[in-house]
Amino acid sequence: MKKLLHSVSPALALVSILLLVCVASADEGMWRPKQLPELAAELKALGLEVDPESLSDLTAHPMNAVISLGGCTASFVSPQGLVITNHHCAYGSIVYNSTEENNLLRDGFLAADKSEELPASPGSRVFVTVAVEDVTDQVLAAIPEGASGAERYATVDAKEKALVAECEQDVGHRCNVRTYYGGLEYELIKQLEIRDVRLVHAPAEAIGKYGGDIDNWMWPRHTGDYSFYRAYVGPDGNPADFAPENVPYAPKHHLTVSPKGIQPGDFIMAAGYPGSTSRYRLASEAKNVIDWYYPTRGKAYLQWLDIINESTADNEDASIKYAGLVAGLNNTTKNYSGMLAGFAKSDIVERKTALEEDLQAWIDSDPERKRKYGAALADLRELIAQSQSEQARVLYYDTLGRRSSLLGAARTLYRLSQEKLKPDMERESGYQERDLGRIGQSLNSLERTYEASVDAAAWRQFILNYAELPVDQHVQAFDEWFGIEGNSVGEADLNAKLHSMYSNTAMGNLETRLSWMEATPEAFEASDDPFIQLAVQLYDSDIELENHAKQLTGLFDAVRPRLMEAMIAYNESLDKAIYPDANSTLRVTFGSVKGYSPADAVKYTPFTTLMGILQKDTGEEPFNAPHDQLAAIKNREFGSFYDEALDSVAVNFLTTLDSTGGNSGSATMNAKGELVGLLFDGNWESIIADWDFIPPITRTIHVDMRYVLWIMEQLYGADDLLAEMGIKTN
Amino acid sequence: MKKLLHSVSPALALVSILLLVCVASADEGMWRPKQLPELAAELKALGLEVDPESLSDLTAHPMNAVISLGGCTASFVSPQGLVITNHHCAYGSIVYNSTEENNLLRDGFLAADKSEELPASPGSRVFVTVAVEDVTDQVLAAIPEGASGAERYATVDAKEKALVAECEQDVGHRCNVRTYYGGLEYELIKQLEIRDVRLVHAPAEAIGKYGGDIDNWMWPRHTGDYSFYRAYVGPDGNPADFAPENVPYAPKHHLTVSPKGIQPGDFIMAAGYPGSTSRYRLASEAKNVIDWYYPTRGKAYLQWLDIINESTADNEDASIKYAGLVAGLNNTTKNYSGMLAGFAKSDIVERKTALEEDLQAWIDSDPERKRKYGAALADLRELIAQSQSEQARVLYYDTLGRRSSLLGAARTLYRLSQEKLKPDMERESGYQERDLGRIGQSLNSLERTYEASVDAAAWRQFILNYAELPVDQHVQAFDEWFGIEGNSVGEADLNAKLHSMYSNTAMGNLETRLSWMEATPEAFEASDDPFIQLAVQLYDSDIELENHAKQLTGLFDAVRPRLMEAMIAYNESLDKAIYPDANSTLRVTFGSVKGYSPADAVKYTPFTTLMGILQKDTGEEPFNAPHDQLAAIKNREFGSFYDEALDSVAVNFLTTLDSTGGNSGSATMNAKGELVGLLFDGNWESIIADWDFIPPITRTIHVDMRYVLWIMEQLYGADDLLAEMGIKTN
Repeated sequence: MKKLLHSVSPALALVSILLLVCVASADEGMWRPKQLPELAAELKALGLEVDPESLSDLTAHPMNAVISLGGCTASFVSPQGLVITNHHCAYGSIVYNSTEENNLLRDGFLAADKSEELPASPGSRVFVTVAVEDVTDQVLAAIPEGASGAERYATVDAKEKALVAECEQDVGHRCNVRTYYGGLEYELIKQLEIRDVRLVHAPAEAIGKYGGDIDNWMWPRHTGDYSFYRAYVGPDGNPADFAPENVPYAPKHHLTVSPKGIQPGDFIMAAGYPGSTSRYRLASEAKNVIDWYYPTRGKAYLQWLDIINESTADNEDASIKYAGLVAGLNNTTKNYSGMLAGFAKSDIVERKTALEEDLQAWIDSDPERKRKYGAALADLRELIAQSQSEQARVLYYDTLGRRSSLLGAARTLYRLSQEKLKPDMERESGYQERDLGRIGQSLNSLERTYEASVDAAAWRQFILNYAELPVDQHVQAFDEWFGIEGNSVGEADLNAKLHSMYSNTAMGNLETRLSWMEATPEAFEASDDPFIQLAVQLYDSDIELENHAKQLTGLFDAVRPRLMEAMIAYNESLDKAIYPDANSTLRVTFGSVKGYSPADAVKYTPFTTLMGILQKDTGEEPFNAPHDQLAAIKNREFGSFYDEALDSVAVNFLTTLDSTGGNSGSATMNAKGELVGLLFDGNWESIIADWDFIPPITRTIHVDMRYVLWIMEQLYGADDLLAEMGIKTN
Repeated sequence: MKKLLHSVSPALALVSILLLVCVASADEGMWRPKQLPELAAELKALGLEVDPESLSDLTAHPMNAVISLGGCTASFVSPQGLVITNHHCAYGSIVYNSTEENNLLRDGFLAADKSEELPASPGSRVFVTVAVEDVTDQVLAAIPEGASGAERYATVDAKEKALVAECEQDVGHRCNVRTYYGGLEYELIKQLEIRDVRLVHAPAEAIGKYGGDIDNWMWPRHTGDYSFYRAYVGPDGNPADFAPENVPYAPKHHLTVSPKGIQPGDFIMAAGYPGSTSRYRLASEAKNVIDWYYPTRGKAYLQWLDIINESTADNEDASIKYAGLVAGLNNTTKNYSGMLAGFAKSDIVERKTALEEDLQAWIDSDPERKRKYGAALADLRELIAQSQSEQARVLYYDTLGRRSSLLGAARTLYRLSQEKLKPDMERESGYQERDLGRIGQSLNSLERTYEASVDAAAWRQFILNYAELPVDQHVQAFDEWFGIEGNSVGEADLNAKLHSMYSNTAMGNLETRLSWMEATPEAFEASDDPFIQLAVQLYDSDIELENHAKQLTGLFDAVRPRLMEAMIAYNESLDKAIYPDANSTLRVTFGSVKGYSPADAVKYTPFTTLMGILQKDTGEEPFNAPHDQLAAIKNREFGSFYDEALDSVAVNFLTTLDSTGGNSGSATMNAKGELVGLLFDGNWESIIADWDFIPPITRTIHVDMRYVLWIMEQLYGADDLLAEMGIKTN
């Protein structure tokens, strides 16, 4: 993976479930900056030279210089709003600015001066954290005594919306409420939302994505995965849409780039916005993903792939439309099979089982603890069991059974017509005024991703799979529409029904789809379009399933913090700190520069060098480094960034840091807090790291800043940018 | 590869061509034992503890204990004729003794006592060197002044036959004349030929061939590639055919097995019988194998594979018959593409070119040298050019154009009828009385390897390819038979001709084929069998081509030693010793135990351990170690052979030794001359080592004797054998 890819995100009802028990080991931990002072001894022992206190303030240096791009991390590296992130994080902006004549993706790009900096792709943002407020008491106080799961969910949802709305009164800011430890803590995070983001420099794809999908997840690695943006604001200093008169944003803080590099064994830390992890799930949860979730979903996705491949075989137009979905399904199934291979070698279920036993024994050994937490583990296990009893329906009905693009559009539109009857603040998330643009875009995108024959072929199979579900998991309205009785479905009748639906719908037409955005519920109910009719017919059951999922989520949100509180207390009794699962908030991970042994008699050393590019290069994508780069390496033009021990220039390096999707572009800093690299990937052996951090083999991969600087100096002559970052060259 | 596989052996005309220039580096060199005293300083510096003089006598300890199995190497390891070699060298004998009920290959084998030792496969031999005589003067003196190439070839051939015949008067011995430095020296080697060889012990294939074809050539490796034979002789102490009353052979010398193992950096040496190398070929030769030989042959073999696969697709019987050829062609084409990849990374042509220039300059700098050797390089280059000008014909006509199994049989039989007219000693090699058994076997084997439809389909394509050769390289008799005119061949006519030939021949019948072994030339000439007719029609051109090849070989044999003599003198002037190319004679290679770096940021350490077997094991062949072995490893039952530094038992190890096909089973000895391992393979990065020894990456792979002993102690309870070798266990 590149760290951009967020980990698997199950349906809402299953999302935010579980906890349990992972005692932090030396390098494990995505720590909240405010926790670092507690870890001062360990940080110092590893070699940190600055005061851990200085790392704990999100609005001060260096943490304030670490910014979010929404899905990726980046850093300010000059007083003039210069931003560094991964090439794969700026990929969309590079593609957006590429034309056949001026192919920036292929050739790379360096703006000659600020006037030549290019607008990033639409929607690109830089988020700078300006305030963090603990709102736990406000959120929890709102929940009525004895609330049901559904009531609890609704109350928390409403309170969060209110807090966000109030916070966002401050124009130019985006606010989010983030949950920690499954609901034990809530924080309101306020970020400056910079909307004018421009592309400053990107290396050629053959550098920035060197090794491509083949090297993805792999070590040894030789990827120059960096790019530069610049953040612009209006002349008044406030966020503004792109405009020629805008000026570079002057960040309060920026990172110092160190050209000196690091050495094996050195202290290292990274700050970034990891998306989500599952480190505290129960043994029964781990067992379920191993035994059911990944294998069953993997199989279903492979079947889906087969159908798409078959039904697009002689249709190049359709095949292009489905290329994105095919790539996604391929990537996911490869990831699942890697995860399963990783789990097969792991004793995670046994370890979690043992930890749960220890925790329960500790709880039971004290009457007061037993009173408070005694039932938490059992309660949680029961909720998990209930959730798992529904997971086949979630997959075969909720996720795939309704998975026709036209039905999806019709359901969204009818739901929108219903939600529009309410005041904006009371609407379901996703159907508020702020969401209309996104809905329109999504209706629009069907033009490039929908083909009736492919949609119908896949949906037909999904309906057949759904029909095999136990009858008590069926949805009556759905059965009635397709004439499904018990588990039996007449294939000829189904084919005829589908043929008729696709023949008689106007939902394939963009104008028609968009026009329904303005319609009333009555108009839907009177329509004779078969997809609209089906959406109307399913509506009550859709709402029922959604409410049921909210009820379950509410129950999880009530039970989870109780067990997590016990967990934290238990670990405190062992003198161990506990970090919360990743939740897209700023975290710090620290450890050291270190290789590993992937197999008996094989050692991976922690640095790759320019020489490895010569070794790998075949001249064919993705191992087609630019000719001038190959020549520079052959001629040993190491310039200012030569490493004597390596007798070359360092390219990528390995650390023991703890990272996941969302960490891409994270500032990798030395013991002084200076920028020495950019985090961009994990190693193949850490594919199950979201579930299980295994110290001897879990590694994070970084691009060495010396490689970035070498490329800028030797290949692009980016002297102005180097000077802007205060880098002196020979 | 396993070292059993000899390297590519081009047709006779090209076999024994070239020389040139490879100055021995630290670990390069397949040294004749008699050269070792010259290398005393280097040996001592590396750590050898015994007197190099003691290694130089082939009839004394330890060299006399190192024996040949014909294609593999082995060693005596007890006074009772116990022999250790590789599992893959005893493979035929293990298979030969396996039945469905008693599957030794699958289950392994340990004779409870001598009476249960099993006869090795027919033809198995143990060759013990008893005398080595320099016969250079006798061979060269026989060559008449001003002899043509053909005369020279014939004279040397006759002299060698005479020397061998005289030597073999001593019953129970086999003799060979071996050529060094391309004809600068000749040695008559006399070996005791022990014919009663018995299988004593072999591990299960899942140990002895662990990793199979997937791990072949690869490091890290975990193969228990060992087996034990015992040599038996008649009660009178002389070689005898298998008989119950035979007794174990008492070797003059045997090796001491060391259970103490070696450590990284230790001195190591191996003695064995490497088959052939091409270290002294010219730059133009190296360029030709890279540009023409491997790519062109590889392409032709792939075409052949396609035809076989296509024409056996619906015919399981045929597919079984061609499985061996398919495996061979697959292996060869994989090897060729590996070689080409290796050459692509090598600057061998540039280095050889530079060396040739240096050598020529050195020759030209002295009038006497210039007189003696001045033209040698140019003469050799001219011969090479001539040979290369014919190589397309050698491939498309000699090798493939006549490549029908039935035509091959017919040509052999007709030639035999002609040779039988001469006295035995005057017959062409391969057609003497001693060869008749082999000819019969080969006619017999067609029953298991020939299918008319497949033979015809491949031959048809080869004929079409032949037709495309420049017309002056065509063979008139062949063209006439198939109605080929210029480069054009009527495909319909060709198909009809082939159909008619295969329909009207009786050569597909075994009885018929064998009966022709007794026929006179006249009977062939009168036959109406189309394959016999074609063989007769081609006979004159066959002889002509053969004589032409002999003429060329004779010329090479005259020029080669001149240049090699210059080479040796040149290196002497640089104070460097030169070893001759491998020629199946006993050689010693020495160096150290050492890992390597196969790629940037990757290091291979020199020992694998039992833990690696757990890591690799999938339960599926070839990674299906026996359950009791897996259990022993999991339980850390390391027994007497635990290595503290590895915290396990060593399994395989890497050395800097110089080896090739034929070295399989070579005795790997420590600084004291004790047996610490068995050589069994080279690493993938050394695939071009027969041409080019590259010190940083060329490695030889050995099974550690401690692993052998661990298996015997822990898995087979082979206490008697361990005691026989003097091994004490805990």
